[in-house]
Amino acid sequence: SASMNSGDEQRARLMEFPYVSGPHRDLMVELLSSVETRLGSSLRPCNLPPDVRHFGHPAGTAYASIQLRPGRPSSQIDFILGGWIHCKFPSGGALNITSLSGYLNSSTDAPNFRLELIQSIPTSLVLVLDLTPRKDLILHPDHLKTYYEDTQLDRYRQRLHALPEVSPYISPSLYVRAAVSPTAILVSIDVGAGETTAIEEIIQDHVGPVAKELLQFWMESCACTERCVGKAERAYLAERDRLIKNKTIELDLGSSFPRLFGQDVADRVLTVLTEHYKK
Amino acid sequence: SASMNSGDEQRARLMEFPYVSGPHRDLMVELLSSVETRLGSSLRPCNLPPDVRHFGHPAGTAYASIQLRPGRPSSQIDFILGGWIHCKFPSGGALNITSLSGYLNSSTDAPNFRLELIQSIPTSLVLVLDLTPRKDLILHPDHLKTYYEDTQLDRYRQRLHALPEVSPYISPSLYVRAAVSPTAILVSIDVGAGETTAIEEIIQDHVGPVAKELLQFWMESCACTERCVGKAERAYLAERDRLIKNKTIELDLGSSFPRLFGQDVADRVLTVLTEHYKK
Repeated sequence: SASMNSGDEQRARLMEFPYVSGPHRDLMVELLSSVETRLGSSLRPCNLPPDVRHFGHPAGTAYASIQLRPGRPSSQIDFILGGWIHCKFPSGGALNITSLSGYLNSSTDAPNFRLELIQSIPTSLVLVLDLTPRKDLILHPDHLKTYYEDTQLDRYRQRLHALPEVSPYISPSLYVRAAVSPTAILVSIDVGAGETTAIEEIIQDHVGPVAKELLQFWMESCACTERCVGKAERAYLAERDRLIKNKTIELDLGSSFPRLFGQDVADRVLTVLTEHYKK
Repeated sequence: SASMNSGDEQRARLMEFPYVSGPHRDLMVELLSSVETRLGSSLRPCNLPPDVRHFGHPAGTAYASIQLRPGRPSSQIDFILGGWIHCKFPSGGALNITSLSGYLNSSTDAPNFRLELIQSIPTSLVLVLDLTPRKDLILHPDHLKTYYEDTQLDRYRQRLHALPEVSPYISPSLYVRAAVSPTAILVSIDVGAGETTAIEEIIQDHVGPVAKELLQFWMESCACTERCVGKAERAYLAERDRLIKNKTIELDLGSSFPRLFGQDVADRVLTVLTEHYKK
């Protein structure tokens, strides 16, 4: 029926987060809902084709659901991307990734938002949570001051690092290490085997509050606060953003999607996403 | 006598490193000597006044010795700075810092060199060892590839991180975190109490070989390999270098020198160093 392809139906399928734990799902639903509430009027509906919103490996080994909402021309938002990936391992077990990214356009120089929860074994979770800088912080020390120092953003990282289960996560990608902010939360959360509820408790008690506060800060102080950006600076931001988005497509999606979903499905999805990333 | 102020005499006092362990001193002497051997013909003699080369707190609580050799106009070197600081704690114990930095000029875009060994208790050592990028690696991905990816510089960091005594050191300064490269070695080396020789063994067996290899790489591939840098790029490098050096004076030296050496001595030394950093 027509309603199967309606926006509400598509949204409901995204919001199921069917393969992750209750607290993990609750957190993602809350984050995506708060984006809709606060930024909804600045966003256009998701116009991805249905087979790009939900897709899977033909053999049924992997599934994914994504939503991409472009910002309205009057807003400072380029687009918001949220979704999940689930991939069964032949050996049993599965990889689950849930993510939410917010990209701003060159009418502002405020940072982007990035959240990723990556879980491949029940006792361990990798968390990436950052306001990614859009300017070189060495050449623009005022930017470091405005968004990272005066705001005391590092207290969120410190709060998580104070937990005994938390240790720094060092990405194998030098690009990823170079792209994050100095207050980036890149951590591995590890609990002892046999205590599979502990990761869920840490998501509920620690990751959730920090992620929600950072997202609120980003929406208010970055996405919705107007900045005065000159013409030369807009060109600089546009070029740097273009490079960042190209690299994200290349490294994050381009390298893993063919492996996870097969070449045909990966090509279909990446062709559509690339249009949004490179526009 | 006149010989007391000669270059050889001054150099000898620097090379004493009188307050650190044998292996620590041997490493610093070897690093500074290899700079003299490989880069000596590209460097002018140190022309710091004697009371800036060696100085201390009037009360005898802290001493320091530094050497600054400017690059010859035909070279790609801005200057090389090496030295040590020793500060006694009122409670007993002491802070010892030894360092070697190499700054290049805007005729090349190759990274700078930075080494610091910071020890405030016998069982723990902070090591900062990095080829500091002089360009925004996001806007210049070719630079990331040339100096950090193709060179596999990360293997040095990995080698040290493989030791059980080594853990990541997270600088309290967001600026320092933003300024380092993605392969930066920022680690804390901690050994159990009572095993005070272990830090010395780790310096000899692990820190030393890595520091020497990285310095060799920097001297050959950065300081002595000619790069083709256009006029606009030279202006960009000069401005970014200026900001880096100003911040280094402000954060590294300006904030600690008055505390360590008293305001008068700090003013005398910083006035002279600032001339070199800001020229």
